[in-house]
Amino acid sequence: MSQWGSPRGLSETGDPLLLTPGPLTTSRRVKEAMVHDWGSRDGGFLAINKSVLEQLPAVVNASNSHVTVPMQGSGTFAVEAMLTTFVPRTGKVLLLVNGAYGQRATQICEIAGRARQVHETPEDTPPDLGELEHALRSDPSITHVFAVHCETTSGILNPIAEIGAVVERYGRKLLIDAMSAFGALPLDATVTSFDALAASSNKCIEGVPGLGFVLCRETALAETKGNATTLTLDLSDQWQNLRRTGQYRFTPPIQVIVSFHKALEEFWAEGGQAGRARRYAENCRVLRDGMRELGFKPLLSQRLQAPIIVTFHMPKDAKFVFERFYEKLSERGYVIYPGKLTVAESFRIGCIGKLTAEHMRNALAAIAEVLAELGVDPRGWRQ
Amino acid sequence: MSQWGSPRGLSETGDPLLLTPGPLTTSRRVKEAMVHDWGSRDGGFLAINKSVLEQLPAVVNASNSHVTVPMQGSGTFAVEAMLTTFVPRTGKVLLLVNGAYGQRATQICEIAGRARQVHETPEDTPPDLGELEHALRSDPSITHVFAVHCETTSGILNPIAEIGAVVERYGRKLLIDAMSAFGALPLDATVTSFDALAASSNKCIEGVPGLGFVLCRETALAETKGNATTLTLDLSDQWQNLRRTGQYRFTPPIQVIVSFHKALEEFWAEGGQAGRARRYAENCRVLRDGMRELGFKPLLSQRLQAPIIVTFHMPKDAKFVFERFYEKLSERGYVIYPGKLTVAESFRIGCIGKLTAEHMRNALAAIAEVLAELGVDPRGWRQ
Repeated sequence: MSQWGSPRGLSETGDPLLLTPGPLTTSRRVKEAMVHDWGSRDGGFLAINKSVLEQLPAVVNASNSHVTVPMQGSGTFAVEAMLTTFVPRTGKVLLLVNGAYGQRATQICEIAGRARQVHETPEDTPPDLGELEHALRSDPSITHVFAVHCETTSGILNPIAEIGAVVERYGRKLLIDAMSAFGALPLDATVTSFDALAASSNKCIEGVPGLGFVLCRETALAETKGNATTLTLDLSDQWQNLRRTGQYRFTPPIQVIVSFHKALEEFWAEGGQAGRARRYAENCRVLRDGMRELGFKPLLSQRLQAPIIVTFHMPKDAKFVFERFYEKLSERGYVIYPGKLTVAESFRIGCIGKLTAEHMRNALAAIAEVLAELGVDPRGWRQ
Repeated sequence: MSQWGSPRGLSETGDPLLLTPGPLTTSRRVKEAMVHDWGSRDGGFLAINKSVLEQLPAVVNASNSHVTVPMQGSGTFAVEAMLTTFVPRTGKVLLLVNGAYGQRATQICEIAGRARQVHETPEDTPPDLGELEHALRSDPSITHVFAVHCETTSGILNPIAEIGAVVERYGRKLLIDAMSAFGALPLDATVTSFDALAASSNKCIEGVPGLGFVLCRETALAETKGNATTLTLDLSDQWQNLRRTGQYRFTPPIQVIVSFHKALEEFWAEGGQAGRARRYAENCRVLRDGMRELGFKPLLSQRLQAPIIVTFHMPKDAKFVFERFYEKLSERGYVIYPGKLTVAESFRIGCIGKLTAEHMRNALAAIAEVLAELGVDPRGWRQ
C-alpha cells in the first residue's frame, strides 16, 4: 500500500511499473544476469549468444527456413539494416503505412535511395488489401512489400497473414517490422511467407534494450551481398562473419545479450508465444474494461486492438491536464505513455512487460484516485 | 590462491580478468547500476543521460567547443556515423592507416562512396608526417584527415598532436578514432584541433559495451545536415532531436548508459585522465618488464607503446602452442587476446580495465607457471 489508498506500482527491483511500449518492466533475474564481465571472444558468452540466435526463429516456427542476424543498437537499427540489405539497389518497395513506424521505414528507404511506393491509411485503419493487390498487379517493378505487424502509434493489429497471402500470390517478398508483436502475436513462417522480420530485445521477450535482430530467410539472405549502404548495418556481412567465426564483427552489447538469454528462458517457461499472448490479452482486457468504466474511450474497436498498447482519447475536460495526470500516476509507480496520433488527441497505456492483471487492476485504482484528485468527473465526458 | 601456486585472476564479481582491449573488466558497482528498469522518457534516466553527455567533452578539455552525440551500437557504429556525417558527399578524406581500425575506416568510406586517399604504413610504424604534409599541400581537394589515436592492432601510439598540427596548418579538418585512447591518453582540444572524435562506453572509461559516442565541434556539426547516408547513423539528426527534446530518436540502451554514468563517477574519482593514465602506465610497465624477464619480446619500442595493449612476438618454439597457452591462462582466470598483425605472428595482453599492478604481477606468475607446464624454456627463444 502507498500513502494513497491504491497499491503502489512496484517492480521486483523496486522500480515504477512501465505501462509503455518498451523499454518495459523486466524481471530481477533478467537484469541480474548482467552483473558479470565477459570478453567478446569468451567461449561462455559465444555459446549463450549462439543459443539466443537459435531460439528466436522458433518463436514464429521459422527454424527450418530462417536464421537470426543480430544487430547492435535498437529496433530501428534492425529495420534500417533489413530494408537496406534486402531491397537491392535495383529493387522497389511498397510500404504499407498507418503510423509513425511505417513512416520511419519510408524515410529509411528515401535516404537509401530505394525506389518506393507508399500505401497509407489513417492511424486507426488497416491497409486496404484490395489496393495492395491492385498495386502489385499494376506495378511489376515492385520487388518487396514492407508491413508493420502491430503499429504502436495506435496499437493497431495489422492483418499480417492476409497481407502475406496477397504478397505471396503475386510472387513478391515480404519484410515485416514485428517490433512490438514478436513473441506475443501469433505468426507462423510456414503459413505466412516472409523474407525478413525485424524485432528487438526490449519488447515482448522482456529483455533490456540494446540489441535488434532480423530473422532472415537463409536463401534470400544469401542473395543480398553488396546491397547494403553501410558497413555496420550490412546483415549479409554480419551473418557471414558470425557463421564463419561465431563472433561479432564489432563489439556486441554482451550484458544485454546475456540478459536476453535469461529473458528467453522465462519466455519458454511461460508457454512461449501462446502463454505470453494469454497474459497480455488478459492485461489488455482488464485495462480496456476498467478504463471504459472510468469513462475513457479507446481509439480502436476490440477487433483492431492488439494486446500490446491501448490508445485512449484525451478526455474533453479542461481539468484533465495530461501532464498532471501522468505525473500523479508516476508518483504512484505507474508510468504511462503520451500519444503519438495525428488523427486525435490521445494517450497510451501498455499491457506488455512483466505485468499481471493484478498490476493492471492496481493501475486502474490509481487512475481512479488521480481522476478524483484532479476533480475530473468521468461521466462528464463519457461519449 | 588457486589450485596452482599463482593467485587466481578474479574480478570483484568473481569473473576472469579480461586482459583484452575491451570489453574489459569493470567494477561491481558499474554493473549493479543496471539492475533497474527505466522508461526511455523517464525524467531520472534523461537526467543521467544528460550528465553523461555533458561530462565526456571535459575528458579532453572540449567542453567549450564540442558536444557529445551518442550512437547506439558500438564504437564502429560511432566511427561510421562520424565519417558519413562529417565528410560531405563532395568532400575527400585522407586516411592514415597502420592497422585494422584504419582499414575499417577506409572500408566505411568506400561503401559510403566518399572520395578518399590512403596513407598506409606498416603496423609497427607511425604515419610519416612529411608525407602527410606533402599530401595536403599537393591535393587541395582533401577536406578531412582521419587518424587513429591508439591502433589496438599493435598497441601503437600514433602522434595525434603532431598530426593535428599539420592538419590545422593546412586548414583541413581532423576526425579521430580515439576508441581505446579516450580517457587514458592525453589529448587537449584547445591545443589539438579536431572536428570530431569517436569512442565508446567499454574502453578506458570502464563501462559495459553497447554505446558509442562522437564528440563533435558544435559549429562543424551544424553544417552536416543532409550528409549522412542512413537514418540511424545520422549524427546531425540525432543531435537536433536530443537538443530539442532531451530524448533519443530511437530506443537507447538505457542500462548501459546508466552504468556508464557510474563508470564516469569512478573515472573522476581516480583523478580523470591523468589518474587513469598513471595506473595503466604502471600496469603496462609491470607487464612489459615481466614478460621480457620471461623471455618474450614486445613488438614495439617503449617510445611507440601506448599503455593500452601490448603485442608480443609469438615464441619460436614448437612446444609453444598459442591455443594451449591461452586455455591454461583462461583456466587460471586471465583472458588474453590473439594477435591481429599481418607483419608477424603475435599475441596481445591488455593493460586497461579495472586492473592493478598487483593483477598484472599475478598474471605474470600464472604465465610463468603455464610456460613450465608446457615445457617451454624461455631462454631457448630469447632474442
